[in-house]
Amino acid sequence: MRPSGRSPDQLRTVRLTRDFTRHAEGSVLVEFGDTRVLCTASVEERVPPWLRNKGRGWVTAEYGMLPRATGSRTDREAARGRQQGRTIEIQRLIGRSLRAVVDLEALGERRVVVDCDVLQADGGTRTAAITGGYVALADAVQTLVRARKLRRNPLHGHVAAISVGIHQGTPVLDLDYAEDSEAETDMNVIMNDAGHFIEVQGTAEGHAFRRPELDAMLDLAGAGIAELIAAQRTSLEA
Amino acid sequence: MRPSGRSPDQLRTVRLTRDFTRHAEGSVLVEFGDTRVLCTASVEERVPPWLRNKGRGWVTAEYGMLPRATGSRTDREAARGRQQGRTIEIQRLIGRSLRAVVDLEALGERRVVVDCDVLQADGGTRTAAITGGYVALADAVQTLVRARKLRRNPLHGHVAAISVGIHQGTPVLDLDYAEDSEAETDMNVIMNDAGHFIEVQGTAEGHAFRRPELDAMLDLAGAGIAELIAAQRTSLEA
Amino acid sequence: MRPSGRSPDQLRTVRLTRDFTRHAEGSVLVEFGDTRVLCTASVEERVPPWLRNKGRGWVTAEYGMLPRATGSRTDREAARGRQQGRTIEIQRLIGRSLRAVVDLEALGERRVVVDCDVLQADGGTRTAAITGGYVALADAVQTLVRARKLRRNPLHGHVAAISVGIHQGTPVLDLDYAEDSEAETDMNVIMNDAGHFIEVQGTAEGHAFRRPELDAMLDLAGAGIAELIAAQRTSLEA
Amino acid sequence: MRPSGRSPDQLRTVRLTRDFTRHAEGSVLVEFGDTRVLCTASVEERVPPWLRNKGRGWVTAEYGMLPRATGSRTDREAARGRQQGRTIEIQRLIGRSLRAVVDLEALGERRVVVDCDVLQADGGTRTAAITGGYVALADAVQTLVRARKLRRNPLHGHVAAISVGIHQGTPVLDLDYAEDSEAETDMNVIMNDAGHFIEVQGTAEGHAFRRPELDAMLDLAGAGIAELIAAQRTSLEA
Amino acid sequence: MRPSGRSPDQLRTVRLTRDFTRHAEGSVLVEFGDTRVLCTASVEERVPPWLRNKGRGWVTAEYGMLPRATGSRTDREAARGRQQGRTIEIQRLIGRSLRAVVDLEALGERRVVVDCDVLQADGGTRTAAITGGYVALADAVQTLVRARKLRRNPLHGHVAAISVGIHQGTPVLDLDYAEDSEAETDMNVIMNDAGHFIEVQGTAEGHAFRRPELDAMLDLAGAGIAELIAAQRTSLEA
Amino acid sequence: MRPSGRSPDQLRTVRLTRDFTRHAEGSVLVEFGDTRVLCTASVEERVPPWLRNKGRGWVTAEYGMLPRATGSRTDREAARGRQQGRTIEIQRLIGRSLRAVVDLEALGERRVVVDCDVLQADGGTRTAAITGGYVALADAVQTLVRARKLRRNPLHGHVAAISVGIHQGTPVLDLDYAEDSEAETDMNVIMNDAGHFIEVQGTAEGHAFRRPELDAMLDLAGAGIAELIAAQRTSLEA
Repeated sequence: MRPSGRSPDQLRTVRLTRDFTRHAEGSVLVEFGDTRVLCTASVEERVPPWLRNKGRGWVTAEYGMLPRATGSRTDREAARGRQQGRTIEIQRLIGRSLRAVVDLEALGERRVVVDCDVLQADGGTRTAAITGGYVALADAVQTLVRARKLRRNPLHGHVAAISVGIHQGTPVLDLDYAEDSEAETDMNVIMNDAGHFIEVQGTAEGHAFRRPELDAMLDLAGAGIAELIAAQRTSLEA
Repeated sequence: MRPSGRSPDQLRTVRLTRDFTRHAEGSVLVEFGDTRVLCTASVEERVPPWLRNKGRGWVTAEYGMLPRATGSRTDREAARGRQQGRTIEIQRLIGRSLRAVVDLEALGERRVVVDCDVLQADGGTRTAAITGGYVALADAVQTLVRARKLRRNPLHGHVAAISVGIHQGTPVLDLDYAEDSEAETDMNVIMNDAGHFIEVQGTAEGHAFRRPELDAMLDLAGAGIAELIAAQRTSLEA
Repeated sequence: MRPSGRSPDQLRTVRLTRDFTRHAEGSVLVEFGDTRVLCTASVEERVPPWLRNKGRGWVTAEYGMLPRATGSRTDREAARGRQQGRTIEIQRLIGRSLRAVVDLEALGERRVVVDCDVLQADGGTRTAAITGGYVALADAVQTLVRARKLRRNPLHGHVAAISVGIHQGTPVLDLDYAEDSEAETDMNVIMNDAGHFIEVQGTAEGHAFRRPELDAMLDLAGAGIAELIAAQRTSLEA
Repeated sequence: MRPSGRSPDQLRTVRLTRDFTRHAEGSVLVEFGDTRVLCTASVEERVPPWLRNKGRGWVTAEYGMLPRATGSRTDREAARGRQQGRTIEIQRLIGRSLRAVVDLEALGERRVVVDCDVLQADGGTRTAAITGGYVALADAVQTLVRARKLRRNPLHGHVAAISVGIHQGTPVLDLDYAEDSEAETDMNVIMNDAGHFIEVQGTAEGHAFRRPELDAMLDLAGAGIAELIAAQRTSLEA
Repeated sequence: MRPSGRSPDQLRTVRLTRDFTRHAEGSVLVEFGDTRVLCTASVEERVPPWLRNKGRGWVTAEYGMLPRATGSRTDREAARGRQQGRTIEIQRLIGRSLRAVVDLEALGERRVVVDCDVLQADGGTRTAAITGGYVALADAVQTLVRARKLRRNPLHGHVAAISVGIHQGTPVLDLDYAEDSEAETDMNVIMNDAGHFIEVQGTAEGHAFRRPELDAMLDLAGAGIAELIAAQRTSLEA
Repeated sequence: MRPSGRSPDQLRTVRLTRDFTRHAEGSVLVEFGDTRVLCTASVEERVPPWLRNKGRGWVTAEYGMLPRATGSRTDREAARGRQQGRTIEIQRLIGRSLRAVVDLEALGERRVVVDCDVLQADGGTRTAAITGGYVALADAVQTLVRARKLRRNPLHGHVAAISVGIHQGTPVLDLDYAEDSEAETDMNVIMNDAGHFIEVQGTAEGHAFRRPELDAMLDLAGAGIAELIAAQRTSLEA
């Protein structure tokens, strides 16, 4: 039995609230249960120095956690003067995942920065960030299309992410913090709307996992991601 | 005429939403019109090294702005590796203002950190942060009282803050971003519930201001702060 | 009775020694009693990146304290790798105050940096820095006029600063360290030669202060600043 | 055809040279073809602050690349003042992988640091580092056993790592730089000597990969890792 | 002919002004011609962590240059967030030189920090700093003796420093900036009052120097240092 | 008797292995006994900003020590976020020494970076780095000559370095760690192939040294450097 009472293949309630703040070209509050991440996509009409004059754009992500998004307060990274290793890993993962569905040449010489700031954490912040960040990115890109700065939409598909794991011997979908902290294996799966893999990151926390366990987790993830992409579509059509 | 259509002595709509997030001992979303700041108060059962074994506690504040809280994206301070001068000034001001109504000996050897993170900025973020931060602090302190860790409430009054300025020759209350960016003078006033001053910071932006202008601004501030303290009371009694 | 034996409205002995060092375009040692600050103004024939090609110049200030300017040694900020919040606040205040009397367009595309380094501290270092920094700035600007790089003097007035406070219930002018450390209220007032306010920063240290106390402090400050501006004039005419 | 002429399931020549330098408790030069990484394991008789008095030890890793280990010179991280995101990701991965085969309680309150410094890079530096780092760790732990500081060996198995990918449509094992830079998918697989997974990290570089491709890559990895563990055994028995 | 008109073996006018500022246990303004360095010695009743409970004290130095001590303004190191290589080299040299005449066990478990801040630079700031820093250290140590915290003076000799060089083919003593910037060889010599070497640092700037040139420079240095030590004695006896 | 059994004027076995790694334009492993330093010289077709458009090139050096090159592990400088003072001093010394034999105008507007990374330390790492770095630099420059990017070789001589010291009252050549840690005086001498001095750095560790001791050390150094330059020639002719 899962701590939350969910069945093994059941997502938490997912909410995508577009236009959560007013300045950004895309602004989405994504909720996976009690995990709440504010994703804003900002369009800048310039690219990093190493990309100049190459006719291509760039999509990147930054991730942060408000100090008291967590059960006990975490030091503010700006005050400590450096981002933690975990933060850097996560924002690199979000950036790679989003770029996997963007035609950077079609984007032109501009940069979209997707900021993912966790207001409240209850496990799965990185998967929520990717899933919600995609919607913010889609909105930002749409402003460019509407403003006729882009002839065609540079997004060639959806991307969403979910965690799976082995909890008390059972493969489960979308772990919350209570499960995550005692899971034997934790895996983040990022897929596109064709059901193909963009990234797979699985880590044994307790004992090493076997191939059949891996297979069961990937099956759960595939079904979960299909639900998430459906939720993205519903949100974007609203 | 003010850009917002308000009368010179009119505050923006003020909202104080308690328990906005679930982990912190106090968590308040404060809104002054379109300015939205999330204030969380975290209780820690230890004090900074320089205060150890002195029988007193400490209240401090940290301030941050999400990168896209503003019209154009601001660099993330954690990524740049240092907080800006403006950030440091503001968080020191918030901390001093809150400490002015706390009996630190009554608080005992513990620290309360009030984190003020701007989700959306439209002028007056520091005054909103002080006003909302006070409510978060009150809630955090109340958890200590309820848990019988404190015999009496160490808060000996309310504190609230508001901006005043000279806009197109007229003294006005609670400037939004449109007014602030073209004001000739900008002043932040922090007062307690006895109507006395905790801090006054006035800066000439365009021309230097005269004593009668200063007097008019202080009059406006006094009335505004009385309204804000009433709103704090209403919120805390709810 | 004040610790120094001064009357409540009495400044400490003020000395302004021009050409204290030989390299800078302006170099002034300012003394308010035992407080000694070396102010140098350096002219640079370029502006910060965000000002380029706008036809305007810039005046900025930096502030530092020698490690043993104070009663016990303070860590060297260069060795710690960051400036303290207090330092940043002070240098921003000095810069704003000086810019308030400069016509930046008349200055042309150049930058003047006013470095204020405290050789010995006894309270009031920031007000001494502004008062002495103005004289260094005036000298630096004069070298540009004499070299015919400027057609007219871009300074359109004087600026000086003084602290006032409530000490043992009495409003007093120009607090030294002994008074400052036990004052109930501390206020820094920056005014121009027309007697108008450029900046007012008052902070309750002990109890909150009332409007009549504020009024009495502003009166003292006005008289003190008139004396300081007279001293600046005498020094510059020498 | 692979650029190196290898068959798809063929490792590069693997060499493990123990005692490559003389100071460290374990010192191994690992070579995967032209990739050369010096792994040293250092035993310290203390643990990080957060582990004190818990009766457990710690194993951690640090990773670095000599500036000219690569085709064009990379900035020295010590001179830039921060480690790159890629470096941080890699050293966290190495540390997690090695800890997966260590009984930290049996290790006692001491720390082993495994430093992996790339002398020459030709793809696969992180997998070489894990594979060679294990041997250095085994040697370091053995010095503790021989010195009777440990009653039993806290290593409960082997760990090794290999990269797999899709190159020109074909799943291949142990990519060198030439293959890696044009691979469509890149996956690092870390396994123990029971053939179970410790970590799986797969990233689509070009197009998203399908489940059968994932399965084929995992099959190749399993065979490759068995060979690497055999090489570790041979080396340690020498 | 030297630019200054001095003979090859002639020092600039040397002045040592004790008690230049009032807070430090030792405070000396040292002048070698137009080079002016403020040296303060601060006694702290604790030692660095690595020296605790070893029954020995420590003497260390820090060096800084005010931004406009030089002909054109140098960036403030505190603002840049790091000390330059040159600064670090110099302060290490000053510290080593002073420690060479201190019996650290006789000093007891305390630290003396000698801060050397250049108010005006005209060549030879490091040699002036050592020569003046010694006098500040002597004064600071004397306060400990007078306060009966030390039974005997831990200084077992004098130390002074001077630069020598080859200027237009001629060996010269105590180079000022004009000579230094065009010297072919520059050497700093630190000696004690027995005429023995504490440190010798010679650098060829233009062409490599020969043994007879080295010998001539060392002869000049020996005579110059004897004069400096005499000046230290005169100053300390005043 | 020296701990190593060497006679006072005997170098350790010196080995210079060219092409130790394959990417750099020059790559030399230099060994002075158990001290092993990998020196790579990298050619970059650009110069630092302050040298642009001046028709001259630049040669610079960076120095690092692998964390376990030493008897006990040293913190990784990249992880600590700053290079130590000792590192900065050494790399500045290496750079100055190498530039002393380069005609920077003949090098043209390009930069050569010589990275010296210590794989194993046993005293004398900086002198080994200079001696081996010269060979790497010579190889790098030769690639430019062969590629006809340079008409003539910009090296106008050899440079090598050796340490000398006073060990148990006897002047000795090329100190290893055992000697260095108990030497009374330690001196590094850098000379060219004409037997002239490029740099001399002598430091009294125990007692101050006398002129005859200095002379004896310089004699030893001269003979040792002649041997090293012969070894460089042999290596480069191979």
